[in-house]
Amino acid sequence: MNRPLSVGIAGLGTVGMGVLRLLRDNGEIVAARAGRPIAVTAVSARTRARDRGITLSGLHWFDDPMVLASDPAIDAVVEVIGGAEGVARALVEAALAAGKPVVTANKALLAVHGAELATLAERHGASLGFEAAVAGGLPVIKALREGLAGNRIARVAGILNGTCNYILSMMRAEGREFADVLAEAQRLGYAEADPSFDIDGIDAAHKLAILAAIAFGRPVAFADVYVEGIRRISALDIIFAGELGYRIKLLGIARQSDGGVALPGISARVHPCMVPASAPLARVDGVTNAIVAEGDFVGRVVLEGPGAGAGPTASAVVADLVDLARGRLTPVWGALAAELSPSTSLPMQMHSGCYYLRLMVVDQPGVIADVTAVLRDLGVSLESMLQRGRAPGEAVPVVLVTHETGEAAVRTALARIAALDAVLEEPTLIRIEPG
Amino acid sequence: MNRPLSVGIAGLGTVGMGVLRLLRDNGEIVAARAGRPIAVTAVSARTRARDRGITLSGLHWFDDPMVLASDPAIDAVVEVIGGAEGVARALVEAALAAGKPVVTANKALLAVHGAELATLAERHGASLGFEAAVAGGLPVIKALREGLAGNRIARVAGILNGTCNYILSMMRAEGREFADVLAEAQRLGYAEADPSFDIDGIDAAHKLAILAAIAFGRPVAFADVYVEGIRRISALDIIFAGELGYRIKLLGIARQSDGGVALPGISARVHPCMVPASAPLARVDGVTNAIVAEGDFVGRVVLEGPGAGAGPTASAVVADLVDLARGRLTPVWGALAAELSPSTSLPMQMHSGCYYLRLMVVDQPGVIADVTAVLRDLGVSLESMLQRGRAPGEAVPVVLVTHETGEAAVRTALARIAALDAVLEEPTLIRIEPG
Repeated sequence: MNRPLSVGIAGLGTVGMGVLRLLRDNGEIVAARAGRPIAVTAVSARTRARDRGITLSGLHWFDDPMVLASDPAIDAVVEVIGGAEGVARALVEAALAAGKPVVTANKALLAVHGAELATLAERHGASLGFEAAVAGGLPVIKALREGLAGNRIARVAGILNGTCNYILSMMRAEGREFADVLAEAQRLGYAEADPSFDIDGIDAAHKLAILAAIAFGRPVAFADVYVEGIRRISALDIIFAGELGYRIKLLGIARQSDGGVALPGISARVHPCMVPASAPLARVDGVTNAIVAEGDFVGRVVLEGPGAGAGPTASAVVADLVDLARGRLTPVWGALAAELSPSTSLPMQMHSGCYYLRLMVVDQPGVIADVTAVLRDLGVSLESMLQRGRAPGEAVPVVLVTHETGEAAVRTALARIAALDAVLEEPTLIRIEPG
Repeated sequence: MNRPLSVGIAGLGTVGMGVLRLLRDNGEIVAARAGRPIAVTAVSARTRARDRGITLSGLHWFDDPMVLASDPAIDAVVEVIGGAEGVARALVEAALAAGKPVVTANKALLAVHGAELATLAERHGASLGFEAAVAGGLPVIKALREGLAGNRIARVAGILNGTCNYILSMMRAEGREFADVLAEAQRLGYAEADPSFDIDGIDAAHKLAILAAIAFGRPVAFADVYVEGIRRISALDIIFAGELGYRIKLLGIARQSDGGVALPGISARVHPCMVPASAPLARVDGVTNAIVAEGDFVGRVVLEGPGAGAGPTASAVVADLVDLARGRLTPVWGALAAELSPSTSLPMQMHSGCYYLRLMVVDQPGVIADVTAVLRDLGVSLESMLQRGRAPGEAVPVVLVTHETGEAAVRTALARIAALDAVLEEPTLIRIEPG
């Protein structure tokens, strides 16, 4: 067997320790599949003293992770520190600039700086693996970039954040409100103390930006992703969704429009969606992730599995190391910079689709007429309307489902409707998607 | 950009023409992802004159496909003739022996001769791609062999034959009998004129043998796969399955037992299963394929999508060609021959699990007592029993669901039960699986 691949790990949190544990437990299997042993020889983390439940003896310890980038005894750097800036970014840049391959689980870094990192990697002939950055253990980067390489991808959509999916699943299963389920998720460790990164959709948007770049063969463009989180979803909307035959899911959706009726370009958006209850993504509950990819030759492919956690993320990191050990290399965005598509990003105002709108109105004569007049004036046509309960003079919910219409028209209509005296709260808008 | 990869295609049926069409329609995307153009330069098929709806002008035509193996102008051979023997086998062997890489969609060839072909490929330094051999466009070979390379796989299970899944789905949806739905599937082109290859489970067994070899890192062992088809499934069993909370699916299941309570080794079997209605595999209807893989670090991963057809199969063939063009190479069974596991195959008699047994008995006093006495004598304990209808002196169905028990005991019990005077037909046995 060949010489081992010598790996330095920067960051010994959950993921870093998971990688160490995997390579210890499954070292023999990994060596057979990699064609050579994969040996962690050096580590770096902030605190050396902490008991991590696995021995670090025999490993070189570096207080400064930057040393991993330049140490000639290290063949590859695993960056599992996290964060789009700071030491994670500096380390990855330094390693690539030194021609040293990098494997990372850092979605923020890839989403925000991935275009420059790809250029850097290409210039110095170093590879950059990031299977662990999207959907944890699901080999979705490999599936899109290699397995479906023959296809023009029309659309990729997914449940990319386990925390949000857990909260929405629990809200539905138990009829509870968002804030209540979030608090419980925090107690159980499914949500962070500061949950905004997850529930405001940023984490899903990082992952979607990466998926879209790979699916459509263009440099990553995180700033162009439209993002809405799940804070405004109420138990009432979940009940209405059920009555209408939908589930509410936070989806990341990227689509390539071919310039038929719409403008040519790529749209990428993360927001709560109403998905038909029978769609594959509707049935995925709890912290599970799932991704649907639609290719012109393959049709629709679905991947489903654990999207986070030490084991799944370590599985993805090691898959990248095995590729490296075998010499199976792929440009960051699937093709060299010169071969990437220059396709433009479409703004959210260009979106069109069907919409669920939920208002709280004073139950009095003429309100529905005023609301529907606004919609008519903006050319928004209705597929259905639901009104629940009768309470003269008090607040009742009214649900409107539109036919396909433009985002700009719906937004304008909703602003005018919100300004009506009889409309009591900020209306809720949820886009309807095929799932 | 680099020199094109020059490809010769042997076989211009549905799949061969699909590959030509894909490379024509998506040539630019494929070239970017492959780092060089992939150009079909030669073809071979039985009939030259047939109109295939796509021009073959400019391509070298060889009446004898064997020429593709030796022509120095051809970098890689795509074998889509099919069949475990004959010209397909001869061509693949000749190409590999000449050190020429091969991509094939031929599951029978890989399942039956894959162990020797891997040795041949290794000896001559030629690669052998067969993503298209299992589950059509789903990149399941890549997912197992590369994407989950860090995991010890405990179990891989799947719906591997679209024809059987279509028939079972239709039987359930419309309450119809097997023979009736089969005849319709034949009219619609979902089943062959001679359907035995599909409905007797052989096709699924070929695919399972390949999956098991990759999942467990050992040479393929088709002869060790236990096979039962779906001919004996009746509309009555499908109704009872529904009442018990199950769906009936033809699954391929391979499992690695670690030598805890069971013997260490690998079991591989294809047979109809009762799967809990909520399991991922239970929800997959129609011609769709789906595969579940369970790894010790990643947990449970599900892939779902089109398992057959020109487009999906061409997608998989081209993915292999892109790997080849990029120089991303992997040994056939995931590791070199010397690194493969020598694990033994466990015979079906060693299987243990829960069983659904359905009898047709004469409705008369004492029958149930006789049946349950046989089960007691063999140590088979019952979880539940259902009896439908009352028709003194006539035939009524009786369903028995066992607790976990051994295959050998159940088979012996069933033979004794079948011999009872009051038992009218061959009893039906369906194994219960987690899905």
